[in-house]
Amino acid sequence: MAKLQFHLQANDSQTKARAGKITTDHGEILTPIFMPVGTVGSVKAVNQQQLKNIVGAQIILGNTYHLYLRPGTNILEQAGGLHRFNGWERPILTDSGGYQVFSLSGTRKIKEEGVIFQSHIDGSRHLFSPESVMDTQRSIGADIIMAFDECPPAGCEYIYAQKSMQLTHRWLDRCIKRLAETEDKYGYTQNLFPIVQGSTFKDLRKESAQFIASKNAAGNAIGGLSVGEPEDKMYAFTELCCDNLPGDKPRYLMGVGTPWNILEGISLGVDMFDCVMPTRNGRNGMLFTTQGVVNIRNKKWATDFSPIDHGFECETSNYYSKAYLRHLFISGELLAGQLASLQNLSFYLWLVTEARKHILAGDFKSWKEEMVVKCKQRL
Amino acid sequence: MAKLQFHLQANDSQTKARAGKITTDHGEILTPIFMPVGTVGSVKAVNQQQLKNIVGAQIILGNTYHLYLRPGTNILEQAGGLHRFNGWERPILTDSGGYQVFSLSGTRKIKEEGVIFQSHIDGSRHLFSPESVMDTQRSIGADIIMAFDECPPAGCEYIYAQKSMQLTHRWLDRCIKRLAETEDKYGYTQNLFPIVQGSTFKDLRKESAQFIASKNAAGNAIGGLSVGEPEDKMYAFTELCCDNLPGDKPRYLMGVGTPWNILEGISLGVDMFDCVMPTRNGRNGMLFTTQGVVNIRNKKWATDFSPIDHGFECETSNYYSKAYLRHLFISGELLAGQLASLQNLSFYLWLVTEARKHILAGDFKSWKEEMVVKCKQRL
Repeated sequence: MAKLQFHLQANDSQTKARAGKITTDHGEILTPIFMPVGTVGSVKAVNQQQLKNIVGAQIILGNTYHLYLRPGTNILEQAGGLHRFNGWERPILTDSGGYQVFSLSGTRKIKEEGVIFQSHIDGSRHLFSPESVMDTQRSIGADIIMAFDECPPAGCEYIYAQKSMQLTHRWLDRCIKRLAETEDKYGYTQNLFPIVQGSTFKDLRKESAQFIASKNAAGNAIGGLSVGEPEDKMYAFTELCCDNLPGDKPRYLMGVGTPWNILEGISLGVDMFDCVMPTRNGRNGMLFTTQGVVNIRNKKWATDFSPIDHGFECETSNYYSKAYLRHLFISGELLAGQLASLQNLSFYLWLVTEARKHILAGDFKSWKEEMVVKCKQRL
Repeated sequence: MAKLQFHLQANDSQTKARAGKITTDHGEILTPIFMPVGTVGSVKAVNQQQLKNIVGAQIILGNTYHLYLRPGTNILEQAGGLHRFNGWERPILTDSGGYQVFSLSGTRKIKEEGVIFQSHIDGSRHLFSPESVMDTQRSIGADIIMAFDECPPAGCEYIYAQKSMQLTHRWLDRCIKRLAETEDKYGYTQNLFPIVQGSTFKDLRKESAQFIASKNAAGNAIGGLSVGEPEDKMYAFTELCCDNLPGDKPRYLMGVGTPWNILEGISLGVDMFDCVMPTRNGRNGMLFTTQGVVNIRNKKWATDFSPIDHGFECETSNYYSKAYLRHLFISGELLAGQLASLQNLSFYLWLVTEARKHILAGDFKSWKEEMVVKCKQRL
């Protein structure tokens, strides 16, 4: 089958925003796109039919660290890969697990070879190396697989950030080598996206972006942002990375973010986003709507019988009222998480689809500026 | 609008099973029927579109005790009743809360007037009387409302059971009086179902059934069974009650039960059932399937990639594999509860629909006997 293709369809004249089309062996993805996070092969509280028909997700994420531990590559291989296992027939991207492994600070040890870490489930010891992570992602079988990188903590020192970036670069070469020596397992093509690191140091970020660009991968990612730095810094470094990554390949800003972060990211030249925020915050009662942010647990919604997001064309959000959803949260009902996740994910997908429309129509900048204000509003 | 109607469509010649049609102002219910339990106005983990389109539920339950405490009658009245509040447009039945209040043993006090109890949420004190419970059910606005009864514990003494039954009968008269003095709140008819009590004493059960029958209600219920007594006793008392309740009115066996309990109940002349088992046990990983009972957490399913219930026409059960559902349970994913509940509820609705078909076709008995064995099988 074929390598991932990216067709640039439009460049916005007033910003760096672009509209494009990614083609994978599991179908097309129209960009800019938001990718719901399905860490262990399930987007929390939402089933695959709902993801496809209500949310309109085009691609979802899985996580190598979590899937490696459970259900494990043995079961995934027997199933014929993650698509067959979880029934998601559209494209899948797997994060390499680097971020998760480094989050286990105290229980992991970084070496040139890779990272030794302890499972958060049973404390068992494991080694993730660039080679082993490529092998694991082969077994999972995602369409887009991420390089194994080190994600340094926000505010780290220059010397740490530099050494870490250099390690990430050496690991990238090992990832590329390993993939070249191994084959796709399930008859469709897997595409490696390398990851720019360099913390919040301009020269490192530039160096890293240029190194990553030189690998001529099918797409490129920006990692290590949205890890605690101020928003303006995140935007500045996103722009710097985008400017140094090829324009004819999709750019993926990892783990970002709020609706306004995504809109700003798009205007800086980012094509792909993922974040747990719509599902995680949704489960806590924070709703993202076309009118602004709603804390649905607030008493003011107790007798508001208007739809969850009035006028928004989402099958469930238009059907259930704010008062009912609040009642579900206050009563601790499982349905609360489902309905809130459907609202937030549908909204995120709507947001990037609208952004794309406005890029194609040529009025993205004015729409974005209005929308950023609207999105941030607390209702 | 019109009072609830029951049309008896067929009597099985070899058992006491019947097929019928209940007409309410919110639509028809084909019997025998199973009613999913939506205690606080939500069938746990399942949304109303799924209930209608995947499960095929014709009527659902709400609980007066829970809805009285949360969201409260004030909010329900402002919403225009429970149907408007939760968006379930088909018939709703509300349990009177008697069972819940009596389950709060230690924190409640039974008097002639009613029951004083403490909220399980905040410990606040409340009085439920036959009159107040009728008023609350007026505010909730269910199509079928239950009389306020005392449900004595299994194995209680004769004298306790007798006094309790007599209290339930006096309370019934007060319920009937209160309803006659008050009006439907939302423009459709609410129908009272009285409840037979009498524990496991034949003469009391017979006396109670005859007393209840004399009220000529739109339908009649059997309470106080499936509270810990052996299955054969439950069947014997169900039959005794059915035999003493009018044949031209629907009979509702409250809180029952397993798939085989339901099949036996149908063969004894019961038309309506409810139980938390499909959702509660589902959330714990116990699946009811057309082939038998599955403990989906069992290791044997880890690599079984066949559908959750092979050959069963349920949109989700046919789509996801046992191995995937097991993985969701083992990983503690929220989607596990949703998929298991959809399987179990769809199966329960399928079971009663099949029973109805076989009653109409005249081969219910042989089908039932085969099905009881199949249902009980541990896979």
